[in-house]
Amino acid sequence: MKLTTLGCHSASPRDKARTTAQLLEMRGHLFLIDCGEGTQMALRQSGAKFARIKHIFISHLHGDHFYGLAGLISTFQLQGREAELHIHAPKGAKEAMLLLLKVSGAHMVFPLYFHELESKESEVIFEDDKLSVTTIPLDHRIYANGFLFKEKNKERKLNADAVQEYGIDVCYYQNIKNGRDIILDTGECIPNEVLSFPPAPAQSYAFCSDTAYLPKIIPLIEGVQVLYHESTFLEDNRALAEKTKHSTALEAAKIAKAANVQTLILGHYSSRYKDKRVFQEEAQTIFPNTLLSEDGKEFYFSE
Amino acid sequence: MKLTTLGCHSASPRDKARTTAQLLEMRGHLFLIDCGEGTQMALRQSGAKFARIKHIFISHLHGDHFYGLAGLISTFQLQGREAELHIHAPKGAKEAMLLLLKVSGAHMVFPLYFHELESKESEVIFEDDKLSVTTIPLDHRIYANGFLFKEKNKERKLNADAVQEYGIDVCYYQNIKNGRDIILDTGECIPNEVLSFPPAPAQSYAFCSDTAYLPKIIPLIEGVQVLYHESTFLEDNRALAEKTKHSTALEAAKIAKAANVQTLILGHYSSRYKDKRVFQEEAQTIFPNTLLSEDGKEFYFSE
Repeated sequence: MKLTTLGCHSASPRDKARTTAQLLEMRGHLFLIDCGEGTQMALRQSGAKFARIKHIFISHLHGDHFYGLAGLISTFQLQGREAELHIHAPKGAKEAMLLLLKVSGAHMVFPLYFHELESKESEVIFEDDKLSVTTIPLDHRIYANGFLFKEKNKERKLNADAVQEYGIDVCYYQNIKNGRDIILDTGECIPNEVLSFPPAPAQSYAFCSDTAYLPKIIPLIEGVQVLYHESTFLEDNRALAEKTKHSTALEAAKIAKAANVQTLILGHYSSRYKDKRVFQEEAQTIFPNTLLSEDGKEFYFSE
Repeated sequence: MKLTTLGCHSASPRDKARTTAQLLEMRGHLFLIDCGEGTQMALRQSGAKFARIKHIFISHLHGDHFYGLAGLISTFQLQGREAELHIHAPKGAKEAMLLLLKVSGAHMVFPLYFHELESKESEVIFEDDKLSVTTIPLDHRIYANGFLFKEKNKERKLNADAVQEYGIDVCYYQNIKNGRDIILDTGECIPNEVLSFPPAPAQSYAFCSDTAYLPKIIPLIEGVQVLYHESTFLEDNRALAEKTKHSTALEAAKIAKAANVQTLILGHYSSRYKDKRVFQEEAQTIFPNTLLSEDGKEFYFSE
């Protein structure tokens, strides 16, 4: 699993700081999460293949998470894209994007599908045989969702020594990986646990931005491998965080700790803090395994 | 007069190349011309004071000239702007921008006025006592205008020696600058030409992008001090220029020469040409005083 934080600053892009966009590579998918202004430039800098992006997930429609979308769609079109593009975004995104593309005289040359979100309950919004994407309803000034990306159906690992010892034919290997017991020609039943090892743990990534401190998301993200949680402010500005429905670094750490996640990544920094390490320091007082997102930074997470 | 070419590449922003936006400083005004995605970052890099921009002129609604506008308006709002903002743009811009701002939950805190353009004839769209802005109807795939910025009412310059010689009181100086003759107490009439020098030539800037080769604009831009004319292609791609309704560098130079302008600036380069000097070389075969726009480049033009 690879995560690239293309942009991680709040409110407005600065001369050298981009607003929220992330690229998540997971089981062959390349998902774009949020699309602030300038995301297409950041994507080019990252070296990502544009055509590999088939799904874009937009948390909410504030400009710093959404205003790069029309330009990106327009560039896909200029590139002669043929692949489908699915956009999962709050209700309102479709009408605004289609109007903007219309006044720009854009003629869509590829299939473009909008999947508009309006439920206040968590729901599965994408699923295939390898993973699922589930919304994490958040509490912000406008309708907002986080997203949980979770691997599923991981195969057990073949115990090469054991299958050789029992002389099991290669045509049964997939059954063994799928968890089946094997009955030998002698009639003896070999339990699956003897022939295979448990699968690697399912990888999972939860993206939570923008939101006020919201303990009710904890059951939804319980035990995730990596949690990105916004930390617009520090505790010294908690009143402002509450007023604007954002979180402090300490609040993000509280969520990470209570949900028993492995790694916390912070981001969506307010420009009032010049040195971003203060976010890490505050969060690490209660959750040591805290990392900082940076524009263009790549994170690799092994199984 | 100062011109900053914030972005000058065609079609899509690249990792290190911005699309069209220019900042024109003229007689105390700071005008923004076009607003491709990422313009607000380029504005920050240029050090421009955002609050000084009161008028934005949009040539046409293709994304590479227009998709940075919503983010810029949104940032003005986050900055607590109070000053009026006037947007002069083709019909359709207002509806798209207001819808985009609405779905983003934006509440306008400053007066925002749209002046929508739809005339196919040249018209004065802004005027004060110092300058005027006139449209230059262009020929592109969608409705497009260039803009002519022209100083007016320049005062004559006082001939300090002459006014002293005739003993003329300081309270008549403004009348002299305004071109009036002066009648002395003796009854003698002193002609204005004796008391003043002609004013400095009026400064003028014509912005022409995007457009096919269009000789009918020549009378509109006759004798301008500085002409920016798009040059998306070279002559080696003239068929493509005709098909996409763009110009070649040579065509831009032909317009500059026929209109007898002082300086030509090229831009809106296709990314197929890696070294932009080829545009200058082609244009200079018939119009030597040709300059190249670059992202963030500043041009100073004296009277």
